[in-house]
Amino acid sequence: MGLVNHVFSEDSLKKLYISNLGIGHTRYSTSGVSVLDNCQPFVVETLHGKIAVAHNGELTNAARLRRKLMRHGVGLSTSSDSELITQLLAFTPPLENDDTPDWVARIKNLMNETPTSYSLLMMHKDIIYAVRDPYGNRPLCIGRLVPVGDISGKGKTNAETEGWVVSSESCSFLSIGAEYYREVMPGEIVKISRYDVQTLDVVPRPAGDPSAFCIFEYVYFARPDSIFEGQMVYSVRRRCGQQLAIEAPVEADLVSTVPESATPAALGYAQKCGLPYIEVLCKNRYVGRTFIQPNMRLRQLGVAKKFGVLSDNFRGKRVVLIDDSIVRGNTISPIIKLLRESGAKEVHVRVASPPIRFPCYMGINIPTKEELIANKPEFHDLANYIGADSVVYLSVEGLVSSVQESIKAKQDNENNLKSNKFRAGKIGHCIACLVGKYPVELEW
Amino acid sequence: MGLVNHVFSEDSLKKLYISNLGIGHTRYSTSGVSVLDNCQPFVVETLHGKIAVAHNGELTNAARLRRKLMRHGVGLSTSSDSELITQLLAFTPPLENDDTPDWVARIKNLMNETPTSYSLLMMHKDIIYAVRDPYGNRPLCIGRLVPVGDISGKGKTNAETEGWVVSSESCSFLSIGAEYYREVMPGEIVKISRYDVQTLDVVPRPAGDPSAFCIFEYVYFARPDSIFEGQMVYSVRRRCGQQLAIEAPVEADLVSTVPESATPAALGYAQKCGLPYIEVLCKNRYVGRTFIQPNMRLRQLGVAKKFGVLSDNFRGKRVVLIDDSIVRGNTISPIIKLLRESGAKEVHVRVASPPIRFPCYMGINIPTKEELIANKPEFHDLANYIGADSVVYLSVEGLVSSVQESIKAKQDNENNLKSNKFRAGKIGHCIACLVGKYPVELEW
Amino acid sequence: MGLVNHVFSEDSLKKLYISNLGIGHTRYSTSGVSVLDNCQPFVVETLHGKIAVAHNGELTNAARLRRKLMRHGVGLSTSSDSELITQLLAFTPPLENDDTPDWVARIKNLMNETPTSYSLLMMHKDIIYAVRDPYGNRPLCIGRLVPVGDISGKGKTNAETEGWVVSSESCSFLSIGAEYYREVMPGEIVKISRYDVQTLDVVPRPAGDPSAFCIFEYVYFARPDSIFEGQMVYSVRRRCGQQLAIEAPVEADLVSTVPESATPAALGYAQKCGLPYIEVLCKNRYVGRTFIQPNMRLRQLGVAKKFGVLSDNFRGKRVVLIDDSIVRGNTISPIIKLLRESGAKEVHVRVASPPIRFPCYMGINIPTKEELIANKPEFHDLANYIGADSVVYLSVEGLVSSVQESIKAKQDNENNLKSNKFRAGKIGHCIACLVGKYPVELEW
Amino acid sequence: MGLVNHVFSEDSLKKLYISNLGIGHTRYSTSGVSVLDNCQPFVVETLHGKIAVAHNGELTNAARLRRKLMRHGVGLSTSSDSELITQLLAFTPPLENDDTPDWVARIKNLMNETPTSYSLLMMHKDIIYAVRDPYGNRPLCIGRLVPVGDISGKGKTNAETEGWVVSSESCSFLSIGAEYYREVMPGEIVKISRYDVQTLDVVPRPAGDPSAFCIFEYVYFARPDSIFEGQMVYSVRRRCGQQLAIEAPVEADLVSTVPESATPAALGYAQKCGLPYIEVLCKNRYVGRTFIQPNMRLRQLGVAKKFGVLSDNFRGKRVVLIDDSIVRGNTISPIIKLLRESGAKEVHVRVASPPIRFPCYMGINIPTKEELIANKPEFHDLANYIGADSVVYLSVEGLVSSVQESIKAKQDNENNLKSNKFRAGKIGHCIACLVGKYPVELEW
Repeated sequence: MGLVNHVFSEDSLKKLYISNLGIGHTRYSTSGVSVLDNCQPFVVETLHGKIAVAHNGELTNAARLRRKLMRHGVGLSTSSDSELITQLLAFTPPLENDDTPDWVARIKNLMNETPTSYSLLMMHKDIIYAVRDPYGNRPLCIGRLVPVGDISGKGKTNAETEGWVVSSESCSFLSIGAEYYREVMPGEIVKISRYDVQTLDVVPRPAGDPSAFCIFEYVYFARPDSIFEGQMVYSVRRRCGQQLAIEAPVEADLVSTVPESATPAALGYAQKCGLPYIEVLCKNRYVGRTFIQPNMRLRQLGVAKKFGVLSDNFRGKRVVLIDDSIVRGNTISPIIKLLRESGAKEVHVRVASPPIRFPCYMGINIPTKEELIANKPEFHDLANYIGADSVVYLSVEGLVSSVQESIKAKQDNENNLKSNKFRAGKIGHCIACLVGKYPVELEW
Repeated sequence: MGLVNHVFSEDSLKKLYISNLGIGHTRYSTSGVSVLDNCQPFVVETLHGKIAVAHNGELTNAARLRRKLMRHGVGLSTSSDSELITQLLAFTPPLENDDTPDWVARIKNLMNETPTSYSLLMMHKDIIYAVRDPYGNRPLCIGRLVPVGDISGKGKTNAETEGWVVSSESCSFLSIGAEYYREVMPGEIVKISRYDVQTLDVVPRPAGDPSAFCIFEYVYFARPDSIFEGQMVYSVRRRCGQQLAIEAPVEADLVSTVPESATPAALGYAQKCGLPYIEVLCKNRYVGRTFIQPNMRLRQLGVAKKFGVLSDNFRGKRVVLIDDSIVRGNTISPIIKLLRESGAKEVHVRVASPPIRFPCYMGINIPTKEELIANKPEFHDLANYIGADSVVYLSVEGLVSSVQESIKAKQDNENNLKSNKFRAGKIGHCIACLVGKYPVELEW
Repeated sequence: MGLVNHVFSEDSLKKLYISNLGIGHTRYSTSGVSVLDNCQPFVVETLHGKIAVAHNGELTNAARLRRKLMRHGVGLSTSSDSELITQLLAFTPPLENDDTPDWVARIKNLMNETPTSYSLLMMHKDIIYAVRDPYGNRPLCIGRLVPVGDISGKGKTNAETEGWVVSSESCSFLSIGAEYYREVMPGEIVKISRYDVQTLDVVPRPAGDPSAFCIFEYVYFARPDSIFEGQMVYSVRRRCGQQLAIEAPVEADLVSTVPESATPAALGYAQKCGLPYIEVLCKNRYVGRTFIQPNMRLRQLGVAKKFGVLSDNFRGKRVVLIDDSIVRGNTISPIIKLLRESGAKEVHVRVASPPIRFPCYMGINIPTKEELIANKPEFHDLANYIGADSVVYLSVEGLVSSVQESIKAKQDNENNLKSNKFRAGKIGHCIACLVGKYPVELEW
Repeated sequence: MGLVNHVFSEDSLKKLYISNLGIGHTRYSTSGVSVLDNCQPFVVETLHGKIAVAHNGELTNAARLRRKLMRHGVGLSTSSDSELITQLLAFTPPLENDDTPDWVARIKNLMNETPTSYSLLMMHKDIIYAVRDPYGNRPLCIGRLVPVGDISGKGKTNAETEGWVVSSESCSFLSIGAEYYREVMPGEIVKISRYDVQTLDVVPRPAGDPSAFCIFEYVYFARPDSIFEGQMVYSVRRRCGQQLAIEAPVEADLVSTVPESATPAALGYAQKCGLPYIEVLCKNRYVGRTFIQPNMRLRQLGVAKKFGVLSDNFRGKRVVLIDDSIVRGNTISPIIKLLRESGAKEVHVRVASPPIRFPCYMGINIPTKEELIANKPEFHDLANYIGADSVVYLSVEGLVSSVQESIKAKQDNENNLKSNKFRAGKIGHCIACLVGKYPVELEW
């Protein structure tokens, strides 16, 4: 439990160097409380030796699976979906030979029991299996370690690769000297051995269902230098900003950002509408953990503590402030107040994503429906409520087209490419939190 | 993991006060490495809610049970016997009604699968089940909380009792304001609710098998004020000393002890042979953890660091030194050396238990056969090896009679008492480590 | 010792709330090793009660002062300059009345003993004295706490102020709900009581000496939203970028920054030369402490771990990369390599400050002369050495004019203002690390 | 701050092995709160290099010395007497040559400024000075390191000694492989170099004053195997028990002890009056820190938690219970209650020291006068108050004669020995806490 930097000391890492493969995990658990028992990877011993499982996502039918396992006589020691996945993988399928486990059959059995959402790694002896659910809701991609100082690694054959790495986000590869190799496709079961990456099978979705990659990875979660579906997240965000400039222009003196996540959209907006991009806030690097707020004064200051104000840059000016999303609506208000008190003449807010209105059951922590600003009465007079001169969100269509435009262009280009067959069926994205339509039926 | 005092802070304990029952555990794990995963109580969720299990002992057929569970499709997350016990308790017996669990049937099923050794507590909702294996190898006893300042609690009815406590050793009761109530009998299944202690069943041993309580609890492990089988451990130890004085008298000036565990035997020996009891060593309370021994000098000092020498008490005298056991033989030598260098004229060692020669498979950490002094060539000339003028161990018969004498006397007296039926069959003690004969057949 | 967030828990802070004034300190000690003993504030008891001293800076004649104090019979318990300052303040000046300390006389005596560099706070009973050395080498400014939600606080009288705060950098005021009030002038002794801020004296510099505020506070150390000498640091940095565009233009496709410190200069450069500002790197927020580099591969990756590459933004383009300074020259090389490997056609480096060539003896940790890239042979072919297509530093004159331009303009405007008398004499800045000329003679 | 075992890890000790001399300190600070700043040794830099001072005791004129130092202009950073001693040692005496410090003159100057109480070590370069105040109030003795396995070390010349150690209590020597060499005499200044122990001077007491070694070291503080003034503490305690049997005999069945400190007195009492010595309590080794007492029940249990009761040993018997002292009177009551409730027929308390009635100003923490049971009205009916059948303390004369008997015998024998001259003047002991007469006049 805790931050990687606190949990892993140089000493504890040294113990791992005797080996040459491993899996780890760093997300918050979304179903199941954040307790030690729910830490991943989840390791159990089976008749065929230990298996270890790390997974990202949330099972839409977890409750039913729990009951099924317990009825079989399995006492469950945690509340995590990962234990369900692991115990399901420990079950012998009917036709399995007693001496050798048939992991593909077990994984397909798992996909049969639960359609989404999970991207997972399973380690058994010297093999790692990388699996993405048929809807592709959570990301998963493969990188390869290249000789240091050779980031591009282009033209290397597999034999020259120094090793393989798998990650939710490709941005992590550069930090460890690996290069992006490819995504794991929706429904794909990949077997990774020391020298080889091999597709064992691709489980299709029920006929007609489009894929359902989480659109909020583009909007908010992912790091801008990550690549999903062949495109850089930064580029999607800039396109959202450009689209927003088309949908909601405003007469002003400058365009700025709530640093740092909204910067690509702000630069896109500024470029599209021809206004100068000027910084109005800087991050307060002296503010770390915010949970110590020792007195009333500091609690009231709220978000203002997190920023410095560059007032000379905007005193007397009309500011367009781009934010990446407004979820609860209680962080943008003090920022606007801060800008006004520091001399901004007007503050127009433009949000580079549509309002969130519905809960997520597939692994993302979203506030309850009641907490979402878009479901509150104040939403009808939002500019007034947050103290802005105007406020406009990006449309759902604008977001979807910003995301899919380049994928579709590429898809048309790549009609003959081998990897394309994995994308068979309609390309889609999960926009359930925006419109309330979920990719699969929810079960309790 | 760690000492109770370090693990439980005042804050962490406060969280427990919302409830009025609980189980805990503090032993070293004997099978299974000492890792966090093996910490008890072991908690799993079953169809009928959570159960928690804490157990003391070691299953003699653990390996076979592991394989059986995994073949059924249960992935095991630890190497501990407690998980085996817990998963066996999670299994539905064939005739169980689907809506209400039959815990007695499940516990009897467990006893059927594994005969020894375990004393265990299982908690489910507001009930705690206390169970002792049919051989009674590990201790377990029940106490009752009395109003503070009323230690005796005699004549209280159940209704006046403030609560129930269960422990391996009765010595723990006084510290929390409870009084000794009774032992859990071998094979007994006790149900403890808020106001009531009730015997649900007593599972008998295979015909002819005597009970097999671990004799080393008397010799070494238990605290002197604990009560087993109706007798105070201190009294048994003193009788061992008296018996030793009969078996191995010696002409000397004084009798002394290796503090503190051998003191009851030393006082018994001194009284029986009429020599004065005089202290020759005092405990060095400034020596705590011994694992920091920063240089060669301190490592060589060894056990001498743990004691102060009261040389004025024995200079020029002949000393009989009573020890409770000599296992490896490497702690008594430096003590004898210390006494001689500080002026003892003669040092005669008398050991208040027989030599240990065989491993224990029922929960006690005993050095390997090769490490036991009784299996080494030097044992044939032990006095010389350890530097003593003479050394004699208590006989096996002497130990057994010191332990059983008072039980048998009491048994004769209590022929008509209700509790006696639980002791049906021959009274015996496990002396496997002394003679190599185990109470049940060992399985791997 | 340690980060503020680790050292101060909510509990430890609660103990401080019984009081309503205090001083603290968070810098690295520059002379004297980083040990607990050197932690500030330094507190000693004097005949007149306790005094506490926190100071920023480094005494240029510390060694002589140490000897002087020890010769008087004062045993010194640390190696810190702060203890010297505190013991000097504990000394009774010749004419002081025995019953009441004359702190102004004592502080002037301190200034007489040591000319620079120090900004310090001294607390005695319910008064805090804020003092800046006559050369004004280290910054110090005063803020006032305003009712929360009233950041501007304009027009408030002293009586309406909720309290006073003093800081090296004004950026810290916003985070605690205070507003910038004014700088402490070079040589000024300010007395701060609960309701009042009062100038007690201003000690002049030796005739002819200009003030000597550290120019690297503008270039590198300070946060961009801090205000020194009446101007925002961000504005100075942007002017440096503009000046750099004039001094060293280049034909290219885009201007970018090494995030985040060089961004103001990059935006200034881009605006002045009319090229688009486009991000090429993003900060890797997953990289925290860099001292765990468990294997050779990760050590070789070096600085690349700290950034993500936004390759789609510059593939095939000519990039002007603005950095705020190049000190040792070993962080810029891997960045350039990264950009080239990710597709940059050309990389032109422009540095928004002049090369550092000399050590600092006034409180700033600068690498040894030998480590400075500007003193190495490779400096003569720097572009080649770091792998850039070209590299140009800002001139010393360019830096000084970027810094002083607005101060001088303001000075001309404010000839009649009261505060101006504190600035009497020539305005100057310490540029010793750039040109080797120190504001006072150094002593050993 | 903290226990030695927690503070010194194997790693931190390794850093010390580069050197071959050092001083340390482990007592609670008696004047001055227990804070980090007051931790010893106290180290300051002087003109002649660093000196380090560790001291045991409390200065009877500390307040006057503090004012004197501060008037000279020394700011004091702690509230500890050790800083006063160290700063006094840092002062140059009038006739000292400027280049070489005259430490003997400085130490004699210290003794002149403050008569008692202190035993101290001062380290300067490769010399350690061991000093005991002229009254010899606090203990100090010297041991020598002998080759391991040669505890007696008799007949070794200095040249064969492996090193020297100094300690308050000789009991610590055995644990590190050293043997007792001799006491530092009252007023003696000893210089210890690598191979040599040399008396530099012995400062006499004012004419007529007897020495004043703290008698409570014998009664309570010291470990029984320590040697003071030529006698083993254990022997003194046994003599106190014997004396108590003479002063306060009782008709009973057995004599017992409150373990462990009263055991020597109990054995002495039992032997003198011819009653059997039988244990009635055992220490509860499961009770460590007592400050977590999570609920009312456990708080009320109080001292009972610390002991186990060996009720079979005394049921129906008349018990003489020996305690070493009764200070506040609130620990003996629950013990007596425990014994009665467990079956004791009578409980007679005999205390092997006289009642404490007065505060100590020389380094020992004694409860306030109001808290001392001997100053309370209940003292007149103490047996009733604590629930005993009778209670008798040892007389002051009985204690003094038990302590001095063997010293005086030895003194008569050693009239011609060299060491005797150090004991010139009357032998005495500080019994201020018993009778209210202090060895020196107290100053504030």
